[in-house]
Formats: sequence, structure tokens, C-alpha cells
Amino acid sequence: MSSTNPIIKLGLPKGSLEKPTLSLFERSGWKIHQHHRNYFPEINDPEITARLCRVQEIPSYIEDGILDVGLTGKDWLLETGADVKVVSDLIYSKVSNRPARWVLAVAGDSPYKRPEDLAGKRIATELLGVTQKYFKDAGIDVDVQYSWGATEAKVVEGLADAIVEVTETGTTIRAHGLRIIAEVLVTNTQLVTSEAAWADPEKRRKIEQIDLLLQGALRAESLVGLKMNVPSDKLPEILNEIPCLNSPTIAELTDTTWHSVEIVVDQGLVRDLIPRLKAEGAEGIIEYALNKVI
Amino acid sequence: MSSTNPIIKLGLPKGSLEKPTLSLFERSGWKIHQHHRNYFPEINDPEITARLCRVQEIPSYIEDGILDVGLTGKDWLLETGADVKVVSDLIYSKVSNRPARWVLAVAGDSPYKRPEDLAGKRIATELLGVTQKYFKDAGIDVDVQYSWGATEAKVVEGLADAIVEVTETGTTIRAHGLRIIAEVLVTNTQLVTSEAAWADPEKRRKIEQIDLLLQGALRAESLVGLKMNVPSDKLPEILNEIPCLNSPTIAELTDTTWHSVEIVVDQGLVRDLIPRLKAEGAEGIIEYALNKVI
Amino acid sequence: MSSTNPIIKLGLPKGSLEKPTLSLFERSGWKIHQHHRNYFPEINDPEITARLCRVQEIPSYIEDGILDVGLTGKDWLLETGADVKVVSDLIYSKVSNRPARWVLAVAGDSPYKRPEDLAGKRIATELLGVTQKYFKDAGIDVDVQYSWGATEAKVVEGLADAIVEVTETGTTIRAHGLRIIAEVLVTNTQLVTSEAAWADPEKRRKIEQIDLLLQGALRAESLVGLKMNVPSDKLPEILNEIPCLNSPTIAELTDTTWHSVEIVVDQGLVRDLIPRLKAEGAEGIIEYALNKVI
Amino acid sequence: MSSTNPIIKLGLPKGSLEKPTLSLFERSGWKIHQHHRNYFPEINDPEITARLCRVQEIPSYIEDGILDVGLTGKDWLLETGADVKVVSDLIYSKVSNRPARWVLAVAGDSPYKRPEDLAGKRIATELLGVTQKYFKDAGIDVDVQYSWGATEAKVVEGLADAIVEVTETGTTIRAHGLRIIAEVLVTNTQLVTSEAAWADPEKRRKIEQIDLLLQGALRAESLVGLKMNVPSDKLPEILNEIPCLNSPTIAELTDTTWHSVEIVVDQGLVRDLIPRLKAEGAEGIIEYALNKVI
Amino acid sequence: MSSTNPIIKLGLPKGSLEKPTLSLFERSGWKIHQHHRNYFPEINDPEITARLCRVQEIPSYIEDGILDVGLTGKDWLLETGADVKVVSDLIYSKVSNRPARWVLAVAGDSPYKRPEDLAGKRIATELLGVTQKYFKDAGIDVDVQYSWGATEAKVVEGLADAIVEVTETGTTIRAHGLRIIAEVLVTNTQLVTSEAAWADPEKRRKIEQIDLLLQGALRAESLVGLKMNVPSDKLPEILNEIPCLNSPTIAELTDTTWHSVEIVVDQGLVRDLIPRLKAEGAEGIIEYALNKVI
Amino acid sequence: MSSTNPIIKLGLPKGSLEKPTLSLFERSGWKIHQHHRNYFPEINDPEITARLCRVQEIPSYIEDGILDVGLTGKDWLLETGADVKVVSDLIYSKVSNRPARWVLAVAGDSPYKRPEDLAGKRIATELLGVTQKYFKDAGIDVDVQYSWGATEAKVVEGLADAIVEVTETGTTIRAHGLRIIAEVLVTNTQLVTSEAAWADPEKRRKIEQIDLLLQGALRAESLVGLKMNVPSDKLPEILNEIPCLNSPTIAELTDTTWHSVEIVVDQGLVRDLIPRLKAEGAEGIIEYALNKVI
Repeated sequence: MSSTNPIIKLGLPKGSLEKPTLSLFERSGWKIHQHHRNYFPEINDPEITARLCRVQEIPSYIEDGILDVGLTGKDWLLETGADVKVVSDLIYSKVSNRPARWVLAVAGDSPYKRPEDLAGKRIATELLGVTQKYFKDAGIDVDVQYSWGATEAKVVEGLADAIVEVTETGTTIRAHGLRIIAEVLVTNTQLVTSEAAWADPEKRRKIEQIDLLLQGALRAESLVGLKMNVPSDKLPEILNEIPCLNSPTIAELTDTTWHSVEIVVDQGLVRDLIPRLKAEGAEGIIEYALNKVI
Repeated sequence: MSSTNPIIKLGLPKGSLEKPTLSLFERSGWKIHQHHRNYFPEINDPEITARLCRVQEIPSYIEDGILDVGLTGKDWLLETGADVKVVSDLIYSKVSNRPARWVLAVAGDSPYKRPEDLAGKRIATELLGVTQKYFKDAGIDVDVQYSWGATEAKVVEGLADAIVEVTETGTTIRAHGLRIIAEVLVTNTQLVTSEAAWADPEKRRKIEQIDLLLQGALRAESLVGLKMNVPSDKLPEILNEIPCLNSPTIAELTDTTWHSVEIVVDQGLVRDLIPRLKAEGAEGIIEYALNKVI
Repeated sequence: MSSTNPIIKLGLPKGSLEKPTLSLFERSGWKIHQHHRNYFPEINDPEITARLCRVQEIPSYIEDGILDVGLTGKDWLLETGADVKVVSDLIYSKVSNRPARWVLAVAGDSPYKRPEDLAGKRIATELLGVTQKYFKDAGIDVDVQYSWGATEAKVVEGLADAIVEVTETGTTIRAHGLRIIAEVLVTNTQLVTSEAAWADPEKRRKIEQIDLLLQGALRAESLVGLKMNVPSDKLPEILNEIPCLNSPTIAELTDTTWHSVEIVVDQGLVRDLIPRLKAEGAEGIIEYALNKVI
Repeated sequence: MSSTNPIIKLGLPKGSLEKPTLSLFERSGWKIHQHHRNYFPEINDPEITARLCRVQEIPSYIEDGILDVGLTGKDWLLETGADVKVVSDLIYSKVSNRPARWVLAVAGDSPYKRPEDLAGKRIATELLGVTQKYFKDAGIDVDVQYSWGATEAKVVEGLADAIVEVTETGTTIRAHGLRIIAEVLVTNTQLVTSEAAWADPEKRRKIEQIDLLLQGALRAESLVGLKMNVPSDKLPEILNEIPCLNSPTIAELTDTTWHSVEIVVDQGLVRDLIPRLKAEGAEGIIEYALNKVI
Repeated sequence: MSSTNPIIKLGLPKGSLEKPTLSLFERSGWKIHQHHRNYFPEINDPEITARLCRVQEIPSYIEDGILDVGLTGKDWLLETGADVKVVSDLIYSKVSNRPARWVLAVAGDSPYKRPEDLAGKRIATELLGVTQKYFKDAGIDVDVQYSWGATEAKVVEGLADAIVEVTETGTTIRAHGLRIIAEVLVTNTQLVTSEAAWADPEKRRKIEQIDLLLQGALRAESLVGLKMNVPSDKLPEILNEIPCLNSPTIAELTDTTWHSVEIVVDQGLVRDLIPRLKAEGAEGIIEYALNKVI
Repeated sequence: MSSTNPIIKLGLPKGSLEKPTLSLFERSGWKIHQHHRNYFPEINDPEITARLCRVQEIPSYIEDGILDVGLTGKDWLLETGADVKVVSDLIYSKVSNRPARWVLAVAGDSPYKRPEDLAGKRIATELLGVTQKYFKDAGIDVDVQYSWGATEAKVVEGLADAIVEVTETGTTIRAHGLRIIAEVLVTNTQLVTSEAAWADPEKRRKIEQIDLLLQGALRAESLVGLKMNVPSDKLPEILNEIPCLNSPTIAELTDTTWHSVEIVVDQGLVRDLIPRLKAEGAEGIIEYALNKVI
């Protein structure tokens, strides 16, 4: 169902970021459904019309006013040089929720140790402009070639001497027998708009709402809720243990020798925290998932 | 593991509704597992035996006492004319949780504007009887033909002048270049039983239990829990903001300058509510998902 | 990203248990990601290195000190006779969360009723040693043959007179037209370590942490949280109804004619409990899912 | 590319017969390509426009002049009672190149032995009219119910007492534990046209061309070419052995003590023929595949 | 198995042309097998090492001497401007064996009729340079933007006013509701080498062998062999009917009243030829497939 | 359709050899169809009943008389030590039509160069007995462990020091970074029977027929037919060029200045032969595929 009175045109990344992005919007409160034979994804908010675009193309669509706001990468903002306004950073991805890096990699058994060892060599990359600038700034003369994909394989196949490729964990790079010798660019997804859209109060209100709720959902992803009953006389020691994000919610129970304590903590700390809480006397510890934390 | 002492025989819809139905039952408290080489789905309730049937066939199975209770559509109840008792409406589907409509659609570039323009023409549909009655009631003489599937394509292929087809959002209809000119029937899933089963107190108790929990799980689907700490002196203003379903749960915290407020609200309202709550002074707002709301 | 300072080497089961195991670890607080072209799964805990192994091979890897701790089955511990220490039982599987059984099954229309009827016959099984011992202990002379898979089909195809095969629900056995005539072994997943690892305090602390959190996540799987408001004067009756795991968390609300009650109960009891709570006067009943219950 | 000057509109069966039909047309000289997002399959003959239709709907499309010629089944001609002209029988299918049969089947362990044992019972079938007529002609009163699919499972699930279902080899029937007790109808694919199209000389010429080449390709499917050198003095004995379809092509070789013999024979006979030819002195026997045999 | 003494390095196109190319080489006499975890496809000719590359990258690899010979498209030769030598045209593709065209297309319901109507508009294309030159040569000022894929959808989505995209049959273009208003470039696959490789006699011999056999296999694709017996007195009339590619092979049979005639003809002519041959008295007509025609 | 009067019970290999085996039988004249829900594959020869079995289990089924004849590997004959009779070798496989080898492989960067360097180390393999015997015969003391699959990965994962694994081309071995240091066993598929079946004249006739036709189809796989017209005066030179398998079929054409020459040659020689034949004056060279060569 197309929107009847949309305020903003939103560009969503197609491809490897598509599924995690639609999932992030769902947790933020927007259901987006891409119909099989349809060009426009359906979104359950009459104030938004959405489009799925290649992440590389979103910057210029926003610059030209074809879209008002969109999600793209810091890398492609730089590569395209589009004149847009960054609203916020959104650190998420399919694999790891870590920022990604464009790295310079060579064959594991090659003699190259530093970028300058590649003078006069062929470098294959999808990020042509940024890579050319990187080597120019470093004063190293190389032949940078645009790569239409499968870039990691090119060094092994003898089609390039080095590559500049994006990676989160380095796993794929190493699995191709390559060695990283430099970091060219750290990147992550960003919420981006145009100065024109930002200057329009109605559009800005909507963009800020999207930003607030995306941030809340992203934050909730790495957090969990913990609830427990603690003996009233152990309350101080137990509160002391708690690396709480917000201040804990503490309430006296009907049986006044116990208090209920409810906290929000980082998922990564739970596995060490729970044994300590239990040792201090907490009982009935339960952990539950969160949709959003504002 | 087949049930040893079943009270009721339950018919579940096979096909496009199968996955959302099994998921709804799971959230309601019944795990149903369809084994690959087995005819009878396993259900973790010794009082129920389940069968997966075509939604079109469930009405007559219930009428004939082969099943006691089942999920089918208002449309197929009408088409088959089966003599059964409707227990309740269950509004859910794969795509949209909206009721579906059987619509009369023609080629986008055809001259037909109203049903009466189709006098003397061929109409293809899977819902033969209802469609024939619709045109007869309207005094329009048409040639209604049963369609074995791919009905939307028939107008484009020149095999029919119009179709009567079911749609939730109209997307597939439009994607085939068709134009909707009338609504023939609004339909949704219903929980259906026979008078005989309903008259048996044991069966009725079980059917009412199923109904209560399915409704509770369906309601929970569009709701979320919100928990927050609010300054005690802002409590009235904040409670005023809240479009709460049940009355909110309010408790004084140990630190008496704060109260804990916990509410259940419609997911669709959250994206506007959260910014307002924050503006009023609420802190530590967390949102969590619900399985059931009774 | 490989761990820099691992304390223990952990063996995870590959194959049919792989997905439920990784999901169990995720709910326990460890994200494990198996990269396509990589041998070592990535785990977000620098103290652990993980490997995916066949469940049959894990016992000997632990016995030989190649792994410190792992998940395997009681059946394969017996079959391999490996000298290892069982830390705990972990009852879970893809289908049913019930322990699995190795059963002796024959063609449904065969004359065999008891194991002794199979004297002199061919038995196909993947669990060769255990099966041979079972018949030897029973004083029955049979020809046990190792089966490389598709064991259930062998009786129907005339390639064996009986089989010993693992099953949770008996469904696949029956779907092949077979009849179970005896139970050879009840089995389930176990957390297993070596005496050497258990004797090392650092390793033991880590193994106990893994055990505590796996158990907490497994327990949470069959439990849900229920929250409700109850009239203060009905509190005793309602508390009486509740088959609560931990003691309930009861708090007076600001409106003192109501109390908030929060409990953790077995999912299987909820469908009978909710109607009773409602009948006793409870309101605003919500059910939510739990990640862990310690 | 749509045809610019088509003579006939051809209906091809969608679904299980689609792939073998397109393959048969390809071997007959027509390449038909179904584009993903297109309604009309492309065919490399400007005199034909093709459409893919459900086999059940083709008879009425031809009767009503919406199509000129098509492939459908004898069964659906009878069921629909459409007034069309059968051009020829085309015996082919995905599995076996045998005609298919609609059979009456009951549970293997049921007491029913003959159709008359089913008096008063429920029969499920997709071929409603033919089945009703079959029982009426036999003077047996039964309740025939239309089945929307998965008909074989209905007897096992207790939803019907018997079924009438189509089968080539009986395999699926037996795999569901059913027993065939009568044959209701033998059917096969037919090339069908309307009297109007047949009366038009241009259309008739085209239909006859299609028929000739389909028949030629179908015949070639079960035939192979054999070529061999035979000693001139053994020629009579060897010719005597040969169950040749056309008369053999015999030519004297440059070395006049040998003749070349080339024959077309049924593939099913080759495995017995080759050993005999070899025994008689034939040498250099080669077998090759044929596209068409006219 | 890697080649031990390769003469040439051959570049094969990855992606949509990969399967038809490997199939063409197989019919030409080279089996190429791409192993799952391997970079280099295996080829059963010790004189060749093969690599699968993006068709866009092959020209520059040949120009730089990284490959000796390869298959690429006329379009990408132009776009890259690489300095290479074209050995021959190879007209084949997945769909149609017709040359492909890069066309200028606009929304079906847009007012644009000719390229000049697009002055000042946005054109999306993957063939950036060729498209810019096309409009510059025509003196039309447009904004050509590089498209990272899904180009056809861009006009419908409002992201571009027109596109330049490749098509064989126009089907996909029309299925997106677009209208072709001009042809920018006709293209096809070409066998390409470098001047250096061509000047080396050993490499040239190998490249010419590849060319001869690829051409022979391509030619055979659209041809079939026909064999028939004809009455000796009808030989002249029948030979007159035959649009034979090579001169027919005619031999007197042992029964001298008949001759055997064997011809190679275009597959497209067979469906009209066979009825005529039959009418003239030919018997035992068989058609068979050809691997190569030199 | 089960056979009514079978002479022999045939065992066919399940798994990776299944598809090439069924294809080989099809080219040999037997269509074998494995129905989805059926245990027994259908075969179009009433004298044969077929079963699909694991290649490892076929030897013992034949030894015990459960099957009469089957296809298995030389490796599993040795491993099982079954007392059976080998009828013939059948060199075919999915990849390469080369015999496969079980090789001893170690990590590419390990110090091991020869089998004796592995004394005291762990060797993982699926071919336990043969591997133990190999090392025992060589007087090397190692710990051979049975591997349940994914054997190549074990060295990299640190679970074994070396492996013994089967390979045709060595590609997978190398792709895992392993180095082959010895060949333990060369193996290939064999047609195997029991002495009892061989001694039965009816069974032996049938087994010999199967063998003759399988061999004929296998031979045809690497051969093609070539037909050409040659000037009568060049006949001797051209015949001299031809590496013909059977003697060529030479016939004078009606135009006596030309002869027709037809030969069967190895596919691998064609790419060099065709240029030479053309150079000598041959015309109208066509190549066609063969089903069988006896």
C-alpha cells in the first residue's frame, strides 16, 4: 500500500546489508516488506516512502534530492565525494557489529611488507578513488585497477599484486592466503541526509525520530534485562557489583526481608556477573531480551 | 507421539497459512511438529489430535464430524455453504495482519469501470459459487469460469476479461497491471466448530481454552511492554500521556523520589510515545516483547 | 578473529546438533560464528577456542587431550569407551528436548516379538559395540553389521532382519513401517571433560562457568515469565494457585488495593494456569520469554 | 519477441508436464523459452503464439476459440465435457512414457475389495464428474468429495474412505500404504483442436505440421541408430536377426568383403540384439541417439 | 591438475556467460572443471592454463600480458579502450544466439520519443564511457550516472529518467514497463588476443586451433544431420529440394533401386523440409544431432 | 513396478557415485528411476531387481548372497575383506574418469616428508584397516583413528598429524593446504559378484550382458564418430592420418571422384586430427556423439 501523504523519501541499502537493516527497522518500530514483483517496499508508516538502493548510489541520490535520507557507508561517501550531511553513525552489520576496514593485502608468501614495497605494482580494488588518493598521499606510484568483484582471489590468480578490500574480521582475507599490510580506511554505516531536508522542520522531525529509535534498537541489541530477588541486608554489596547502564530499579517486596532489583546490563558482562550475584546471595535471577533501550 | 486420550480433533490449514498458524499455536503454548514422512503432526497436548488440511476442505470435515474444530476462512465457509458454528475471528496472515479481500479486477488499460460493464464477459476465479452469486444478486449476466490457479495472469494473457481474486494489500494485483473495480467479499481466518462438538462440555472447555490462548497470543503480537523510571513529581503528567491498554503498574522505588511505571502499549504507538515520555522526564525506558496478553 | 589467550579448547558437535548447540550457546552468552572458508569457528570469548567435530570423535579428542571440554552423547561415550569425566547432562535436541533412545526395531509385519526371536539374524546399526554387548549380555547370538547410514530402510529392503537405531519420538521408525521391540540404550547430550583439565583450577573455573550458563539457558527454554496485577484481598488464593519455580516477586502498587505479582512458570502449565488466574480476579496478565533462569 | 504474423494460438500444459512438453517441442524443432517476468513464452516460429495454461483449462479455451490447438489429457476432456476435436494421442510423461490411469484405492488394511464395498462411503478425488459418473453407472451410491490436492494422504488421515487418483506406476499409491481395487479411467496426453480451427486450411496445415514433428520426435525417443560392418557372406543371417523399423540401409564398402549396415531399432531391444549381432560376426558396432524418426 | 608445460594463458568469462562458455568448450573438445575451493579451473589440455575472470576485466588483462587470449564482449572492448587484437566473433549466449544490444530505454508512459528529448536528464548505465560518448557525439547534454546493477528498475523507481542497458530479446526491458527509443551499440562475444601473443608462432598455432574448433562447435549447434533412403529415380527432384550446407553424401545401396542420402541442414529449416521430402518419396528419414561441423 | 520374474538382484552405489552410475546404466540401455517415497528403484528390465546401497556395504551383501551382483570399489573390497568375485573394472567417476587414489597427506608447512616421519603420530582415515596394514607392512608404528568425515580438515584443525584420504585430482587435498607424501592405494569401481551367482548359468548370462553393455557405454564416452568426404585420390594419405579404433567404413559416393569415410576416434585426439584432415583435403567433416561402442 503506497503512502498517501509521505513526508520523507528514505533510501535503504540493498544487498548484504539489506536483511540486517530491515531487521533493525523492525525492532525500531517499522515493518518494511519487499513484495516480490514490486519496486517499492511497503512500510507501515504513512509519513515515509522507502526505496532499496545500492549502498554506493545512495549518496548521490541524496545529494541530488532524489532521496531525503538514507543509510550508506562512510567509505562510499568518501569515494563518491557527495555533498551530504551525516546525521549519525550506526554500527551494525551482518557479522559482528564492529566497524569494517578497507585493508591493503598481499599474498601471504610475497615479499611485500609495507605499502611502499608495492611501487610500480598493480592494485585491484572496488574503492578506486579512495585507494588512488591513499597511495598518492603516501607518494607511492602504483597502478590501481577497478575490480568488478571477487577481489580477494585476484592476488592468488596472479591478476594483481595487491588488493584493497573491505573486511570486518579479516577471516575472508586470511582464508584466501593473503596478508594485511596496511589499513586504508575504517568505515561504518551512517544515517545521511541533505542540507535541504535537514532545513525543513517537518522532515527534520521525522529524521530525528528515525535516528532516536534506530539508536534505541541498536543499543538494545547488546543489552539484556536482569531481574533478581536479593536479601535486604545484602542490597549494598550486590548493588556494588552491578555495572548498570541506567540506575537500577529497586523495590521492597511484600516480604520486607527481600528487595526486587532490576537492571539493564551489557550482554557481554552477564556471563561473569551472574556467578558473582549468585555468590552474594541473589536468588531467582532471570535474564530477558530487550527490544529498545532509550 | 500420538495422543493417548484425545478430546478433540483439530484441523489446521495447510499451505500459505501453515507457517503463521503453527507459529501462532507455538506462541499460544502448543508446539506442533510436522514430521517429514508422517501424516499426523505431533502436538504437545494429549487432549488434542491435529491434522493439516486444505483450508477449503476444513468446513465440510467439521460439518461431517470428521474434525471437531478447525481454522478456515470466512470465504470458504460461504463457498462451501457448510453448516458449522463460528467460535471467533482470528485476524492474522503471513503478510499484514489485515483482513483479506476478494476483489474484481480488470486489465489496467481496459474500458471496464464497474461490474455492470462486464455483462457477457468471462470471469475467472477460484471462488466460483460466491462469484456467481455476487453477479446474480447484482443482476449482471456473466460467464464465471473456475480457475485452477495463476488467476491474476489470465487477464493479461487474454484468457479472461476479469478475475475475482483474493488480496491483502493489492500489491500482486497491481504488479500484474490490473485495476480493482469492486470488492466482492472481505474475509479472515475463523475458529470454527460443529454444533455437536460445542454441545459436548469437555470439547467445549477445550475449544474455549484454545480460543482464549490464541486470542491472547494474537493480541500480544501488536503490543509491547514498556518499563521506565519516572520522577515521583512528574507521575501525573506522564500517566496522562500513556495510551495504556491495561492500567499501568506503578510502584514506589526504594529511592522514593522515583516511581517505576510499567505499561503495555500498541507497537504502532511506541515510535511517537517514546520521544514524548523522554521529554516529560522518564528515564531508563526499555521496551520488551510479549508472548501473550490476556 | 582467533583468541589470543585461550584457557580451554572446546569441542562442539557438527551436524544435526550443530544448529541447536550454537543457538544454546548464543542464549548462554557466547556468539559462535562459523565462517564459510574457515576451519575454526569464531567465538566472542578470548578464553575459549572452539572446534566443530563429529559427535562420535569428541570423546577420544578429550581423552587424548586434544580438546579440554566438549559436548557429546552418552551413547558415543559408551561406544568409544573413552576415559573422560562427565560434567553434566544437557537435555536438548532439534526436535523435542527429550532424551533419545537407541531401539531395536523389526519389520511391522515380521514375526519377531522379543530380542531372543532374532537369534541367528542380521542386525544393522551404527552403534556396533554397544549393540554387540547388548546381545552378548542377553545371551543371544546374532550377526551385528555396521551400517553406514539409512539404517531404517535396511529392513524394508531386505538387507537386515532388524536394526538398532536412535530415535526421539519413534516417528521415523514407524514411518518406515518398523516396530520397536526393545530399548537398547537411553542417551542424551553431556558436557564432558578430561581429568587433567578438571584438575587445572583455571580450566575448571571456565568449565563450571560454561556449565552454569548452559544450564540456565536450557532451563529458561521451557519457562516463561508471567506478570499480573491482583486485587490485594485475593492475593492468598492466587498465590495458592501458582506452581512457581522460584518464590514469586510480590509488590504493593501505589494504588494499595492492588499488588503486582511476577512469577516464573513452566510453559507447559501456562495454558491451564491462565484461565484459573483470570477466574480468581487477576488482571493485565502478560507472558514474556526468558533468556536464562539461574 | 512476440510473433508478428501468427497463424495459430497454441496452449501448452503448465506444471508437471511443462518441462517434458517444452523438451518434446525442442526436439521437434521449436525452441520455447519462458521468460521470468513475462506472460507469453517466446517461440522461434512466427506462425505460432504460445501460452502456458493449466491442463484442466485448455479444453474450454479451445472450445471457446481462445486457443486454436493445445495439449491436454483425455481425463480432463471427459471431466470438462468440452466440445473439441482430438488430432492425435501423444504418449509421454515425466516418468515412464506409459499411459496414466485414474484408479480407485483404499487403505491397505481396510476390508474393501471391490467398488461395491464402498457403498455409503466418502471418496475423495480431483476428477469429480468422471468419478461420480463411474459410480452412478455401476449403481453404487457413494459420497464423492472434491479434493484440493494431497489426495493419497486422505485415506491414511481418516478424511476419506477411498480415493480416485492418477498414477503411472502405482508407486506413490503403494508408498502411502494404499491398495488399488479398480481402474476408473486410462488417460494420456492428446493434441486437441476446435472444429473451427481444423476447418481453416492454413491453421490445419500448421496443426498437421506440429503433429507430424511431435510424433517424429516422440518416436525417436525410444529408438536408436545402430551402425556396423558385416562380412559380406554373413549378410543374410545378420539381416535375419534384425527387428528393423525402417528397412536397413546396406552399402558395399570399398573393401568388398564387407558391407556397411545401418538400422533403426527400439532401444529396449538393443541389450539383447547387440550380443547376437556380435556372435554372428558383426564388427565395429556403434549406437547413436536420434532426434526424430519420420 | 595444473598444466606442466602451458603454451597459453586463457581467460574465460565468469558469471552469466560462464555456463554456456564451458559448455561450448566441452563441445569443442576441452573439458574445463571448476573445483569448489580452487582458483584455477582444470582443463584437459596441458598446453593451456585457464582462469575465470569478469568479462569487463579480460581486455586489460590481455593488453597487459597477464593473459594471452580470452573471450570478452565488443562492448567492454570499447568501454575499456584496451589495445588488443580481435581473432573472431563468437555469436552465442544463454538465451538466443543472437547478438545483444545496448539500448536507450525510458518509462513506457513517459513523453520521451528520441534521444534528444532527454537533454538535461539523468541516464543510468553500467557502460558509462560508451554512453557518454554516444550522447556527446549526438550533441545532447545529459547527466550519465554509473549504475551498480538493477538498472532497469531505476526508471520505475524514479531514480533515473532513462537507462542504457543490454538486452537480447527486449523481454526484460518490456517486463519493467520500459520503452526502447534508440540502439546505442550492438555487441557479441569475441575471441581476443594481444599482438605479442599473436606474433609468437607457438601461441598463434594454439589460438587458431581454439578458434577453429569453437567455430565448428558453434556451427554444429544450429545444424542437424538428416539421413534418408530415396528411390533412385526421384534422386534429382529430392536433391533439388535440399538446402544443403555441405554437398550431400550420396551412395547407391545394395538394392540399387534406392540411394542413401545424407545431409547437414539448418535446424530451423527442418520443420518445413521434412514434410516436403516425405511428399517426394523419401523414406526412413532420421535426424541426429552434431557435435561439430568443420 | 516391481519385477515379476527377476533373475538377479543388483546393488547400485548410493551417494556421490549414484548419479554417474544411473547415467551409465541409462546409456547402457537400462532406465533406473528412484521414486521419492519408495525403497526399490524401478528398472525397465523384468530380469533385474535393483537396490541402492552404500558402496562400503555392497561387498558383504554379495558375500552373504543378499545381492547377486553389484558395483563397489577396489578399496572397500580390500577394507571389508569380503570373499567375492571381480567381474571387471569400470573406470568412471563424477569428475575425471581416472582411477582414484588413497593418499597419505600432511600439513603443507609440516616437516614430514616420508611415511616413516610419522612414527608415533595420529593418522585419521575412513579406510581404517587398509591404512593400519599399510603402516604395519612398512614397520612404522602409528595411531590410526577412524574418521567420520571431513577428514581433510583434521590436520589443519590440529586433530590429526596426517590423513589417508581418497582423491582423483589432488585438488581438494591441496585446497586444504595439505601435501601428499605417499600413495596408499589406487582404486576404481568394479563389477562384483559371488561365486554362487557366477556358477548359476542364468545369472551368469545376465551378469555378462550387463558387463558387455556397461563396457560399451563407458567406451563410447571417450569416443566420437567423425564423417567426412575425401577426394578419391587422397584416400590413402588420409587413411594414413587416422588413428582409428575400429577399421574405417569407406564407401564410394555416386560422384566417384569422392569417397565417404566414417571413423570412430578418441575425443582427445579430435582437436589435433581435424586440422590435419582438413589440410589433406577432407571436406564436410562432421562429428557426432556415440551411445555405445562394442
